[in-house]
Amino acid sequence: MTGTLSILGLGPGDPELLTLKAARLLGAAPVFAFFAKRGRPGHARTIATPHLNPAAEELRFDYPFTTDLPVEDPRYLVDMAGFYDTCAETLATRLAAGQDVALLCEGDPFLYGSAMYPFDRLRGRFPVEVVPGITAMSGCWSAAQAPIVHGDDTLMVLPATLDSATLATRLRHAEAAVIMKLGRHLPRIRSILDELGLTARAIYVERGTMPGGHAVPLPQRDDSPAPYFSLLLIPGRQNPR
Amino acid sequence: MTGTLSILGLGPGDPELLTLKAARLLGAAPVFAFFAKRGRPGHARTIATPHLNPAAEELRFDYPFTTDLPVEDPRYLVDMAGFYDTCAETLATRLAAGQDVALLCEGDPFLYGSAMYPFDRLRGRFPVEVVPGITAMSGCWSAAQAPIVHGDDTLMVLPATLDSATLATRLRHAEAAVIMKLGRHLPRIRSILDELGLTARAIYVERGTMPGGHAVPLPQRDDSPAPYFSLLLIPGRQNPR
Ligand SMILES: C[S@@+](CC[C@H](N)C(=O)[O-])C[C@H]1O[C@@H](n2cnc3c(N)ncnc32)[C@H](O)[C@@H]1O
Ligand SMILES: C[S@@+](CC[C@H](N)C(=O)[O-])C[C@H]1O[C@@H](n2cnc3c(N)ncnc32)[C@H](O)[C@@H]1O
Repeated sequence: MTGTLSILGLGPGDPELLTLKAARLLGAAPVFAFFAKRGRPGHARTIATPHLNPAAEELRFDYPFTTDLPVEDPRYLVDMAGFYDTCAETLATRLAAGQDVALLCEGDPFLYGSAMYPFDRLRGRFPVEVVPGITAMSGCWSAAQAPIVHGDDTLMVLPATLDSATLATRLRHAEAAVIMKLGRHLPRIRSILDELGLTARAIYVERGTMPGGHAVPLPQRDDSPAPYFSLLLIPGRQNPR
Repeated sequence: MTGTLSILGLGPGDPELLTLKAARLLGAAPVFAFFAKRGRPGHARTIATPHLNPAAEELRFDYPFTTDLPVEDPRYLVDMAGFYDTCAETLATRLAAGQDVALLCEGDPFLYGSAMYPFDRLRGRFPVEVVPGITAMSGCWSAAQAPIVHGDDTLMVLPATLDSATLATRLRHAEAAVIMKLGRHLPRIRSILDELGLTARAIYVERGTMPGGHAVPLPQRDDSPAPYFSLLLIPGRQNPR
């Protein structure tokens, strides 16, 4: 009898934005695992804290280095692949021993979530259950009270890590957009939005649904690097009747 | 003292995919309201049922006619605007009398949700809280176990109600896509995907996270009209290391 891997979306930060299902599975899991940057508590771990089974075994996967290297960098890809192989094998030992394992994930696991990499490696080998989570973008547009798409608007979700030409072209093909993974890209994104005439409509959201979270029109945000927990919203048509 | 309007995202169908916050507010609300098609129980109402305060007042807003009319039809727009005006005023009487009101919404309220129309009319007049919900697309890609975007993939979310030329152009500008509101548009969408070489990658999901829900590769789905609760997923790059 092998264990089941439950990949649990934990939402954008507010621990009350967990689903009833994720809370139930978290409370029951004999083993839980999560990714974290070295020296940090780990965002998913923090959200999960009030819901954990205190007797559970905790597996912490420290990223080999910060995610600040561009994803196209060959060192990034090689190191990360080896890292995820190791994480998957650690999970596999517990699953093979018949233990159920909860893999924690901020937001929704399958929207740019790290949990997809162990999933890709373990699917087919072990039973897997995926529990969706509230995405960061839903948390942010709800907190900012900014309806994102009405009627037949299109929504484009893109990472700020894309090159400027691609970003500009893509932004021309939707009424609404969400730009994630801002970090040091904020000034570059702002000039693209300026050129497209979109800056006035853009809303900067930092730590959406978390303590100290806030949303401001992009023109009121300076160009200092954006923290990890931030994104831009460009709502589609407003107030259609 | 006016009441607060809480707009509650209830997720894609599984009542365990409510957030703890939505469940708490539902249990406490002295008045709750929801939209439904005539003669149907109402999807949001069904999801909410196990969590409702049994003493609460229930406000049911029946859509004036089915959503099968194209959104561009002038009759649709005029009738719907009047309908939402009336709904908003009904909510306003309760709020003005100091009652808190929960407005139920399937999925996430601000992603194509009907709750945006009362929100647009009542914001500024009354305190409003928006609780994000698990989107239908998150529920569907989790149920189908299809990671949607890794790394710097772009995700495009579009309604099948768009014209074919627009759909085709937009689909060329993203690695991943979700096509909502399929209904009678399925055969037309299939030919667009055929032309773009995307059919083999597309997954049809019906009643995601609900009883009887299922996911199949699009080539295995016939061309009969799709039910209301269905969408297409086109996952981005698969299994990057
Ligand atoms: C690797 S992605 C993970 C996304 C997550 N799986 C989801 O479903 O939203 C990380 C990005 O999500 C965004 N993010 C996550 N939590 C956030 C929050 N509470 N407020 C603002 N942005 C957030 C940031 O743009 C960050 O760069
Ligand atoms: C008016 S939109 C509402 C979307 C919702 N507010 C959300 O956050 O996903 C309705 C569309 O959502 C999709 N949908 C909703 N629930 C679904 C489910 N359980 N399975 C598949 N598709 C669903 C269908 O494409 C339907 O046409």
